[in-house]
Order: sequence, then C-alpha cells, then structure tokens
Amino acid sequence: MKTLYRGATLLCSDGDGFSVLKNGYLGVDGKTICYLGDAAPQDDYDLTKDMTGKIIMPGLYNCHTHSPMVLLRGVGSDLPLDQWLFGKICPIEDRMSPEDVAAGSALAAMEMIAGGTVSFSDMYFSQDQTAEVAIKAGLKANLSRHVQSFIPGEKPEDSVSLNEAKALYKRYNGAAEGRVKVDWCVHAEYTCTEDMPRALAACCKATNGNLHIHLSETEKEHRECKEKYGVTPAAWFERLGAFDCGGFAAHCVALEDADIEILRRHHISVAHNPTSNMKLGSGVAPVEKFIRSGINVTLGTDGAASNNNLNLFEEMHLASLLQNGYLRDATVMNAVTVLKMATENGAILQRRENCGKLAVGYRADFIAIDTDRPHLTPCLDAPALIVYAAQASDVVLTVVDGKILFENGDFKTIDKEKTYFDVKKAVERLYH
Amino acid sequence: MKTLYRGATLLCSDGDGFSVLKNGYLGVDGKTICYLGDAAPQDDYDLTKDMTGKIIMPGLYNCHTHSPMVLLRGVGSDLPLDQWLFGKICPIEDRMSPEDVAAGSALAAMEMIAGGTVSFSDMYFSQDQTAEVAIKAGLKANLSRHVQSFIPGEKPEDSVSLNEAKALYKRYNGAAEGRVKVDWCVHAEYTCTEDMPRALAACCKATNGNLHIHLSETEKEHRECKEKYGVTPAAWFERLGAFDCGGFAAHCVALEDADIEILRRHHISVAHNPTSNMKLGSGVAPVEKFIRSGINVTLGTDGAASNNNLNLFEEMHLASLLQNGYLRDATVMNAVTVLKMATENGAILQRRENCGKLAVGYRADFIAIDTDRPHLTPCLDAPALIVYAAQASDVVLTVVDGKILFENGDFKTIDKEKTYFDVKKAVERLYH
Repeated sequence: MKTLYRGATLLCSDGDGFSVLKNGYLGVDGKTICYLGDAAPQDDYDLTKDMTGKIIMPGLYNCHTHSPMVLLRGVGSDLPLDQWLFGKICPIEDRMSPEDVAAGSALAAMEMIAGGTVSFSDMYFSQDQTAEVAIKAGLKANLSRHVQSFIPGEKPEDSVSLNEAKALYKRYNGAAEGRVKVDWCVHAEYTCTEDMPRALAACCKATNGNLHIHLSETEKEHRECKEKYGVTPAAWFERLGAFDCGGFAAHCVALEDADIEILRRHHISVAHNPTSNMKLGSGVAPVEKFIRSGINVTLGTDGAASNNNLNLFEEMHLASLLQNGYLRDATVMNAVTVLKMATENGAILQRRENCGKLAVGYRADFIAIDTDRPHLTPCLDAPALIVYAAQASDVVLTVVDGKILFENGDFKTIDKEKTYFDVKKAVERLYH
Repeated sequence: MKTLYRGATLLCSDGDGFSVLKNGYLGVDGKTICYLGDAAPQDDYDLTKDMTGKIIMPGLYNCHTHSPMVLLRGVGSDLPLDQWLFGKICPIEDRMSPEDVAAGSALAAMEMIAGGTVSFSDMYFSQDQTAEVAIKAGLKANLSRHVQSFIPGEKPEDSVSLNEAKALYKRYNGAAEGRVKVDWCVHAEYTCTEDMPRALAACCKATNGNLHIHLSETEKEHRECKEKYGVTPAAWFERLGAFDCGGFAAHCVALEDADIEILRRHHISVAHNPTSNMKLGSGVAPVEKFIRSGINVTLGTDGAASNNNLNLFEEMHLASLLQNGYLRDATVMNAVTVLKMATENGAILQRRENCGKLAVGYRADFIAIDTDRPHLTPCLDAPALIVYAAQASDVVLTVVDGKILFENGDFKTIDKEKTYFDVKKAVERLYH
C-alpha cells in the first residue's frame, strides 16, 4: 500500500534543524517514508490525500509518563508534594486493578494519539494491560514496570515488582513487530535499597537493555541521598552499575555539574518534564546546561496527576519559555531545538532506529496540524508556530508506521465510546 | 428574549471562590443572568439549550494585549528583545495602514472569541479600526491609543499620539451601550518625556479615566530609569500624578517592594503577562507578593508577536506553574486564584460593574467548555480541569451580553472567510 500526502508544508529534518518544504509531497510505502519533495513523484500511488493548509511534521515522543494516571487527573491539585503523593495518589493507586489500568491506558492512548504523540515511555504497574492497549491502538511504546523495595534485606529474587518486570520483558519486548519495547526501571534512589539498582544493572547487561529512572526530581531527594550515602543520586546509581548500559533519567531538576558529567559519560538521556516540575514546586531543570554538555534531552509529561494532561505541545511551549525566562535570555531555547527534543531526540532515547524524522527511509510516524485556525494565522514561521502558538487539538492526523490512527477527530483504532464507558466504571470503583 | 441553558456543570462565583453546580440551570434574560440553580426555574423561556457534558464558567478577560499584532505572529522569534523589537517589529509596524490594523483586529477578535475571551484591554495605534471590529463582533473592549514622545521639548498639545488618543476617547468611549470603553495610555517611562504622564494624568482627571501603562517590564528598563531620574518607574509615574485616578500596569516584572506599595496605595491593578515575560527573557513577576499586598492581579497575553497567540488558557496555566515552580511551593497559586484572575479581577481592572462572575444580576458574559474529550476525562475537579488540563479549543460557546458570538466552531458575528482574505492581503502588503 502506497499513499501520497500532497499540498502540505513539510517540516523535513536536515542536519541541524528543519527545512520547510511548502506545498510538498510526502510518499509512504508500507511503514516507511519513500518520497519527500516539492515536485510530484514519478511512481504510482494507491491513494492520494490532499493536505493543503496543513503542516506535516514528525510525530511527538512522550519520554516519561505514567499513562494510566489519567484516571487520577486533578486529584489533590494544589497540595504540597508529600500530601499529594502519600495522602491522595497512593491510596487510590492501591485500589487500582488491572482492569482499571487497562481503562486508564486506553484513555491515555486516545489523548496521546489525538494530541500528536506517536510513541511514549511509560512507567507503571500492570503494564501488560498498557502493552495490549498500545498493540491494539497502533502506538509505539517503551514500557517499564518500576522496581522498588521498602523492605530492608529483601532479596531481589523475592521482589514482586522485579519479577513482574522480568515477566513483562519476556512477554512483550519486541511485540507488534518491535512497536512495543520493554525497558528496565528502578523507580528512584529514595524508593529502593542498594540491591535493586544492582539487580536491574544485571538485567540491562543480560539483555542490552534500556534503563528508565527518576533522578534528583527535588532538592530534598537530592540532599537526603547525600546525607544518607555521602554521594548524589547520580553518583549512587553509577557506583551500583545501573548506568553501565545507558538509559534515561526523568526530571533531573537538582543535578549538580558532576552529575551532568556522569550522565554524559554513560550516554544517559534526560526526559525533561517542565510542567510537572513547576506544578509540584520542584523547580526548573538546568536543561540548557544538559544540552551544552552534549546530553540527549527529550520531553515528557509525567503522569496526568501532576500535569494534568499528556499534551506535548504544552511541554514544548513551556520547555522554551522556562529556560528563556529563567536565564533571562530570549535566545537560549529556540523553536527548532525544542522541536528536536520532542521528536528525533525521543527516538534516540527509545533506541528506535530510523524513527523521529521526516526523511526518506525513516518510519512513517508523522502528524498533520491544521493551520486554518485564527491562532495559527498567518503562518510566517512554521517551527515557531508549532512551538509557541499551536495547541494539541490542532492535530488532525496521526500516522504510525504508515497507519492512520486518528483523522479529523476520529479514532481509527480505539473504540471511543467503550473507552469512556470503561473509564466511567473505573472512576466509580476508585472514588465511590 | 429569555434563554435557558440546562444540564451543564456551572462554576458559580461565591465569596472566595467558585461553587460547582452539577447538572445546573442558567437563565439569561436579555443581557443579564436571571437564574442559577440545580432545579428548573418556574418561569417561561423562549429557548432552551441542552448543555449536558459542558462546563459553563465566566468568560475570560485579556487585560493587556496589542491585538492587531496577530499580523506579526512569529516574526523574529527567538531573538533578543532589542533586536526583535527595533530590528523586526518596528519596521513592519511603520508600514501598517489603518486597513492592516482592521484586518489584524478582526483576526484577533476571532481568535479571542474562539478561545473564550469576552473582553480585552488593548493598546495600539489606529484603535478606531479595533473599535469598529469590537462593536461588530460583539466583544467588550477597553481600547487605548498609547502616547509616546521621543522629541525633546515636544509639547503635549502638539503630540500626534495624544491628539489621536483624545479623538478616540471622544468618538468611542461608551460606544455600543458601554461595551467599548476608551482608556488613557502612556506607553512607558522609557518612551516618553515627563510632560506626557502629566498630560495623561490631566486627561484621567478630567474624565475619571482609567490609565493603561507598561511598567518595569525588564530589569534594564527599571535600572536605567533609576539612573536617569533617581527613582523607579513606579515612583516616577506617581510623582507626575499619573496614578492619581487609578489604572493598571502591564508586566511589572522588576517591581521593588516600595513600588508594590505605590500600586496598592493608588489602586493600580496589575496585568500579569507570564508567557511574554518568559519568552522575551524578562523573568518572573512577583505575583504572589502582589496578591498578598491586596493588589488586583489579572492576566494578559501581550501582543501575539511575543507570545505567539491570544490564548488565556495558556496564561492561566503558566501563571500557576510559574509561581509554584519559582517559589518551590505547590500551594502558592491554586486553580481558583488563577480563575479569578482571568475573570472577575479582569472586570474590576476594566471598571465594568456586574461583570466577570456567574451570578444572578450579572451580565451574561460566559463560555462553555466541552468535557467530552480524552484530555478532560474524568472531570473530578472542574477548576483544576480548566486551569491545568483544558485548551482554548475546548471552548464551544462564547456569550457576551447574552448574545452568542461563537458556537461549536461557528462565528456568529464575524465573517471568517472575509477576515482570512483581508489578512492575506495585509500580509502581502507588509512582508512582500
């Protein structure tokens, strides 16, 4: 099956940024982009779609989320972090069944697809439910069951979460022709004993795996680790071998310069979560420093309970504004840098080859934005328009591996009414 | 004409916040809200509209913008402030005709109405064009022609901008049964001589007028004023009598504690512009301090050239996140505080009686948000949903003085195709 998308403004990836191709042609053959140009291709296509007035760009990567937490959207808003987490969130999560996680995952998949996300890195429990949703929905997903241990002396082989993580890996890594991958995850320094990072390091080594962690999210966590172990969380994980096979770290608000060097040395990507960090009062991550150090920086929404959505347009917007305002320099984080964070850098973090770019030979993972809207008129600078003016709801087409998942408001792979029904039931179970 | 809106979740204003009325009834008689309740009213209505699944809340106030600058959306993005302003923006503005301003004003009106804005405080030239657009569009508008003077010794009576401001006041203040008001405006300390604030103070005194100014937007402006006059911009304006009749100040990023006391003393409201301040690298205004001092704080987008849209949902979102993240306290700016800033505080700034609240006897200026969207599901906390999860595009109904301006994507008072055509012509004139 070959499809030609014609008439759109194409944001094609080139060396350092994007070249803007007006009134362009994008050809897709199966799962792959086979043509990009400003003249019609010579070969035949099965289907031609008119995309006049749209911007087509690479799809977005949400590199750190807890997707089923959409069921907790708005719970405990405006509370301090510990009251929010331990007083409000944890008691509800304790009641969540696999069925609830399935409903939350489907709702999250709808939100992500409608907002232009083509792939996400998830961290949660019952991720087999999320895997099934991603497979059916057509999304790409790097899933991980977070391992934690609050039991002194607990042996890794007795850890329920670690055993679940291993089962998840065995069952789903590489599923759906590689759309679903399973990463290894140690939740955070403050939620485990030293044995767990060591155990996860062994898992990574045995499988050449990708590690997903929370790192120095708050000053408090960072300081308390130094008090406890005499080293920062990054140095602690490094010492335990957790970074030996690379991976990625979420938040990274409180990192020191020496920590940044640790991440760089071990090719650890950063998943920057600007909304969550600000909303919970954690602060501004030194993203400009990460980039200057050569670290691969990406974007994530975190869970919807601390955001309160899975909207990467907001994260792009905020990622640029925050650094500029915080460093008092309007030139620090330009639109092109932020667009790369949300697209091709995400594919690097997820270790997906030939993904994240609008380029010939790359996977056909792209989205279209309708510019026939007052707030996107005039279109003088397409990257600036996307980062500073667009909303997630301006997405009118989401394509993954050449397959249309969402078009003009319609979900092609998810039953919207059934999902809403399942969510309603889950909410009744959790809150009433 | 009496209309009953039934079935929505109503965000009714009460003393300190909002009471949430589920499955409520909102009655409108002419321009005024005549009924609010959870039971059907006893009297007859000409028309009943089913609003099941919607949240109805007071309409939004954009308290500082330069609306025709939507024509400059995306111009000079990611440049330092002076290169952006003097190198990119000013040369284009110098070419702008009244016809261009009319086209930009109409485009801005579409964007504002579609995004739930019911009233705006504008500052620009050729505001007679903007007045005509607002009158026709059905929007409320506080317009102002900014006065500036770069000519040493120029007398106020010779000032073109001051004479234009006076003509604007005479022609449009109170127009459209009070929907259009004209405020007085001295642009900023750094763009005028001492005579201008004095002249504007006289205008305010003679008309009991409202003053609109830019104040301490950047540290540089603030510092240079102190070097030049030995006092801060706020103290300078106070000394020249500009604050004698109250008014409102935009930005206020660099205010000192003594300045905050000056504003409080003279009942000067603040129009907080979080996106613009961050995007241009100006920094974070000490909004929490303003509120604690008893100052009336509102929200504004600034012009689209430094934003790059007129989206008050983004401003609400950012206003909360910024203070929480900057002060490292998740409890500083809660959803209810921010909702009040965007609604009833705006009506106070614009000196509009019985406006800005969903309450019986108040003007029927309200909007409806469709929650039948994945990112607004579930609806556990309506104020948090609006501030943290909603997008401007979730607005499906905008009503001003009882009249529907926008419903389910359709503009009832503005010709969309004609506006796009006029904008296209203006863009050709300005950029080609």
